[in-house]
Amino acid sequence: MSAALFKALFTPEVIALVGASSDATKNTARPQRYLRQHGFTGTIVPIHPREKVIAGDVAYPTLAAAHAALVAHGKAIEHVYVMAGGTAVEDALEACGTLTIPMLSVFSDGFADVGEVGSARQAALTARAQALGVRVLGPNSMGVINIPGRVTLSVNATLEAARLPAGAVSVISQSGTMLGTLLSRGAARGLGFAKMISVGNEADLSVGELVDLLVDDPQTRVIALFLETLRDAPGLSAAAQRAQAAGKPIVAYKLGRSALGEALARSHTGALAGSDAAVDAFLAHCGIVRVEMLETLIEIAPLLMGRKPAQLIRAPRIAVVTTTGGGAASVVDRLGMAGIETLVPSPALQAELATHGVRMSDAPIIDLTMASSGARYGAVLRSLLASPDCDGVLAVVGSSAQFHPDFAVSPIVQTPWSAKPLVAFLTPHAEASLKLLAEQNIAAFRTPEACADALASFFRWRLASVDATNDAARASPDKALQAVSELLANAKGCALDEPTSLQLFAQLGVPVVRSATAHAPDFKHDVPYPVALKVRSADILHKTEAGGVALGLSDEDAYLARVYTMLATVRIAHPQAHIEGVTVQAMERGLLEAIVGYRHDPMVGPTVLVGAGGSLAEIYKDFALRVAPVSLAQAHDMLTQVKAFALLRGYRNLPRGDLEALAQAVVAMSQFALLPDQPVAEAEINPLIVKTEGVVAVDGLVT
Amino acid sequence: MSAALFKALFTPEVIALVGASSDATKNTARPQRYLRQHGFTGTIVPIHPREKVIAGDVAYPTLAAAHAALVAHGKAIEHVYVMAGGTAVEDALEACGTLTIPMLSVFSDGFADVGEVGSARQAALTARAQALGVRVLGPNSMGVINIPGRVTLSVNATLEAARLPAGAVSVISQSGTMLGTLLSRGAARGLGFAKMISVGNEADLSVGELVDLLVDDPQTRVIALFLETLRDAPGLSAAAQRAQAAGKPIVAYKLGRSALGEALARSHTGALAGSDAAVDAFLAHCGIVRVEMLETLIEIAPLLMGRKPAQLIRAPRIAVVTTTGGGAASVVDRLGMAGIETLVPSPALQAELATHGVRMSDAPIIDLTMASSGARYGAVLRSLLASPDCDGVLAVVGSSAQFHPDFAVSPIVQTPWSAKPLVAFLTPHAEASLKLLAEQNIAAFRTPEACADALASFFRWRLASVDATNDAARASPDKALQAVSELLANAKGCALDEPTSLQLFAQLGVPVVRSATAHAPDFKHDVPYPVALKVRSADILHKTEAGGVALGLSDEDAYLARVYTMLATVRIAHPQAHIEGVTVQAMERGLLEAIVGYRHDPMVGPTVLVGAGGSLAEIYKDFALRVAPVSLAQAHDMLTQVKAFALLRGYRNLPRGDLEALAQAVVAMSQFALLPDQPVAEAEINPLIVKTEGVVAVDGLVT
Repeated sequence: MSAALFKALFTPEVIALVGASSDATKNTARPQRYLRQHGFTGTIVPIHPREKVIAGDVAYPTLAAAHAALVAHGKAIEHVYVMAGGTAVEDALEACGTLTIPMLSVFSDGFADVGEVGSARQAALTARAQALGVRVLGPNSMGVINIPGRVTLSVNATLEAARLPAGAVSVISQSGTMLGTLLSRGAARGLGFAKMISVGNEADLSVGELVDLLVDDPQTRVIALFLETLRDAPGLSAAAQRAQAAGKPIVAYKLGRSALGEALARSHTGALAGSDAAVDAFLAHCGIVRVEMLETLIEIAPLLMGRKPAQLIRAPRIAVVTTTGGGAASVVDRLGMAGIETLVPSPALQAELATHGVRMSDAPIIDLTMASSGARYGAVLRSLLASPDCDGVLAVVGSSAQFHPDFAVSPIVQTPWSAKPLVAFLTPHAEASLKLLAEQNIAAFRTPEACADALASFFRWRLASVDATNDAARASPDKALQAVSELLANAKGCALDEPTSLQLFAQLGVPVVRSATAHAPDFKHDVPYPVALKVRSADILHKTEAGGVALGLSDEDAYLARVYTMLATVRIAHPQAHIEGVTVQAMERGLLEAIVGYRHDPMVGPTVLVGAGGSLAEIYKDFALRVAPVSLAQAHDMLTQVKAFALLRGYRNLPRGDLEALAQAVVAMSQFALLPDQPVAEAEINPLIVKTEGVVAVDGLVT
Repeated sequence: MSAALFKALFTPEVIALVGASSDATKNTARPQRYLRQHGFTGTIVPIHPREKVIAGDVAYPTLAAAHAALVAHGKAIEHVYVMAGGTAVEDALEACGTLTIPMLSVFSDGFADVGEVGSARQAALTARAQALGVRVLGPNSMGVINIPGRVTLSVNATLEAARLPAGAVSVISQSGTMLGTLLSRGAARGLGFAKMISVGNEADLSVGELVDLLVDDPQTRVIALFLETLRDAPGLSAAAQRAQAAGKPIVAYKLGRSALGEALARSHTGALAGSDAAVDAFLAHCGIVRVEMLETLIEIAPLLMGRKPAQLIRAPRIAVVTTTGGGAASVVDRLGMAGIETLVPSPALQAELATHGVRMSDAPIIDLTMASSGARYGAVLRSLLASPDCDGVLAVVGSSAQFHPDFAVSPIVQTPWSAKPLVAFLTPHAEASLKLLAEQNIAAFRTPEACADALASFFRWRLASVDATNDAARASPDKALQAVSELLANAKGCALDEPTSLQLFAQLGVPVVRSATAHAPDFKHDVPYPVALKVRSADILHKTEAGGVALGLSDEDAYLARVYTMLATVRIAHPQAHIEGVTVQAMERGLLEAIVGYRHDPMVGPTVLVGAGGSLAEIYKDFALRVAPVSLAQAHDMLTQVKAFALLRGYRNLPRGDLEALAQAVVAMSQFALLPDQPVAEAEINPLIVKTEGVVAVDGLVT
């Protein structure tokens, strides 16, 4: 099935164009012209109500008429591209079903891109396509381009270009025009492409399924994604795991990092709102490299091609060789901001470099301005790549890149491929040198910022987490999870109160504060003093505002006195509330308050979060977030990402906190993801008090 | 004098090249070749020990010999460029002195660029040049380029280019090769230059003095700086004020952002803040626009040209028109990250746009894909620029920029100049369109990131602060400052102890905690309980570690008991220390602890800092820094930059803090900058407790 889909989508021999035009100035005339211009050798079948011939190809009034005529010649339409409005899309789909045409691409818009009515229309289209067994690309898709295969089935004006560069990078884009942007920018610097697909609204074929198809494409070695949203996270995750197994790295540029961008992506696509942090966690979980800058998306491809994640557990160290101090400094500065160190060669490496005529100065940058020959330059690159001190080499080339590529560009081009990355930043405008480097699959950058972005993205890259064990755990939940499930079943979709929430956390293995419920008239309890006191009532959500919280009551007298005044105060604020009594909790003191949360993100699914508690940490948005569940090692890795936890690691001789217990609590909270049917929307422990030994949950909620 | 310098530096009619070579493959052959190639019409005088003619010009063995021969023809050498090693530089300088040649540019290195010995050599060169009345550019300078004037006196290989683009932007660079980088990149997109100067080591001519020269250059409308360091901050500040008065914006790209390092984290032991924050504050103080990305340095120039700082006191609102949703979203996303809003047109503006055929969708982006004509597109741009809702317009152009510039690029080009910025981002590779836009001085960007960087930099731009009033205040310090001066005079260059420091802060007008010194045997004091207690001894620096601090003593019994145990404990840790007694302080409680610091930065001079106190804020590096002194309005502006102070502004219904008193304390601390001779290296109040009414300094130090 997927081989048949692949053929119909990427290498159809007979293409029908519904809405083709004989007016060359119209967009709808473009696909036919572009197909011929770029060497399509198959049959093009324009569909037009009246014209008999369009741009030299015989036209037919309907798909059925075309089909009948073609069958007589032993041919069949494999791919229909619809560019017409009205009911043309639905009509074409029906015709595909009737005529068993496997593939329909839809340029026409007016579906989920135009609000609720359009969404309903799209849902109907999807359902009908499934019923008919026809696969749909779009609607609102700019089409599909197979450069080596000479299929340029798109209205994108970039195809006006005389020549299209073929290469081993395939692009899947949720923005049609960005396909053209990437194609034209790549062409200018010698970066070529294999397949390019505009997915439009993803009514049927999703980004994930297309990635999956490209995993089996021998012409594709790197898959680049331009994303505005995520419509099918599980599909993408599964495809990404196959891509990893096949050694095909995936890189993504995703919009929506600012609140504004996120809102825009939502209104533009009708997609659900997911937080960008969750998207980030999801892409990392899939082993997908995420880049920050648009051009990095294509410039990073040769860096990823054939390579695996470095998976370093310390800061990466890059050796920087240069023929321009200022140019090198501009990248090194950016690398430093991204946590990448510039290699200071060891004495042994310095001695080796000295045999190539290199003398180090105080700065770690290896200045080759005075290297007498390209041969010496090349020898330096090989020595650095061979050194175990070095995780990669950055060659910065100054003005010679523009007029004397033989000096500093040729040695880079001639350096044998290495599993460690060798990348180049050319400071002048030097397109010919960029092309030379691209031809040898050496990542070359136009700007220091994109160069640093690519290296930072590369070293952030981690292998995908494997979901199989989680599926197993979900299939047969252990005792604790069963108990949690039962507790939740009783909640029947409501928010749980604090004591029940804490009980749930305890069930998962998180230590919770010792507490008891005390009732009128004597309010007896067995919690040792000092205690905290909270009114217990399902009717009062904001207990602090209602005067229903008191802390640090040191003995029974203080406790009882406070209980009576509290109940009186709360009664005034909430005269109708049913008050069940008071919750008495042991007062806990520790080094730091943390927050541990679980959330079922609408876009990416279960996630777990850990951060510092309190208002300041909230303001600084200091947290780490992952796709749940996480392992203990992953939880520890999350802790290293929270800046405030430096306070638990012996900062300024402060006592150390129990990071192991904190990591265990994160793992425990992430287990909500393993519950059958994932009934928990959100759960939060806030605060979780971190002590020198152990942690304790003091407050929390489950929804 | 400066007119004479300008002439000799930028438009010399007779240039001598010391170390010129007849071997065309050598760097030293380049300036002569480049001068001829780019149309220099004056006299070139190669100086060479043996050759009689070099590349067609008569050569002389010495400057003196050349001078004698030229004088006979009524000519005089105006500018000497030295490219030779050994003592050639010093020899040339002496010859310039003897022959009254006003200008010496030095390509040769081996001065401050090679450590201490070189620095001494450079200092001697500078002193001798001053004595002789010769001005020096460099050493280690790539030279000077005057494009409209056809003087290309440089070894930079970029000058191999057949044509150099002339324009109204001048560049001063501390990196020689970066001149070539900027020139070649500008040329590729139609951005031209007036003057380009490589300053090298700045032994004599500094960035500041060169800016000052360019203020009087009618061909220069924008001054761009590539900075690695600041060698003469006061000179640059003064020149920047002249440039502002002349309506010539200055833009800077400065390296060293990652070197910023631990900043606040080291406030107890080292600098108050890393030097990059001080540089940032200094550039803002000078009214210099700082960009983050290298290409922005040249791409932003047309945006600044002829414009003034917008000085908005709210987030800027940019109208975004586009022919590509994905392309626009990529910029809007970046703009959002930089705090720039996308304009949502008011109903009135929407009605006006509707008359041009524009229908708004849910998204604020104004989609012109379907605009039927360039005329309509132009009308939309004019309406937006005229709208008071709108602070600027960004036009995003998709694939049409590559093949159909008439559709969306021409209307931008034809839009009349406006004080509000109109900028363009072209999504495809479209150099011809970039040139069209550059020719009309419309800022056009290749990447969404540089576009957002430029707009963010533009809207961050503020007028320079005027130093004149500070000079006056320094000349006649008021009574409080005189008292502070006297107190400091007694300190004789040592660090002050805490009570004296607090006394100093009080003198400047900062409320300080009520405190007293108590002595043996009865340790009486008149501070109301509860109190804090600290051992008083000049010999004990780390009081907490020595057990010499106690907090929250609620009555006299607790106080006295603690005094005796404390003194015994401290005595064990420091048997030799002279203990003067104990300091008793009122316990102060407030909403938040702030830190207010003053530092005389070695690069930029007096600075003042305010941030949140405590370990968390230290970890988050949450502070604002300015050149001192600051006005009350500037201090309030600083407070808005400290994220933690959201907690003082009614965050989550918390009580509000006294921001006015906090701002006043910042102003007061910044007054250290007004002391004659600026004797204070560092001063810090930590913590300054912010209450609902007032602030109080509890601890602090002055160095």
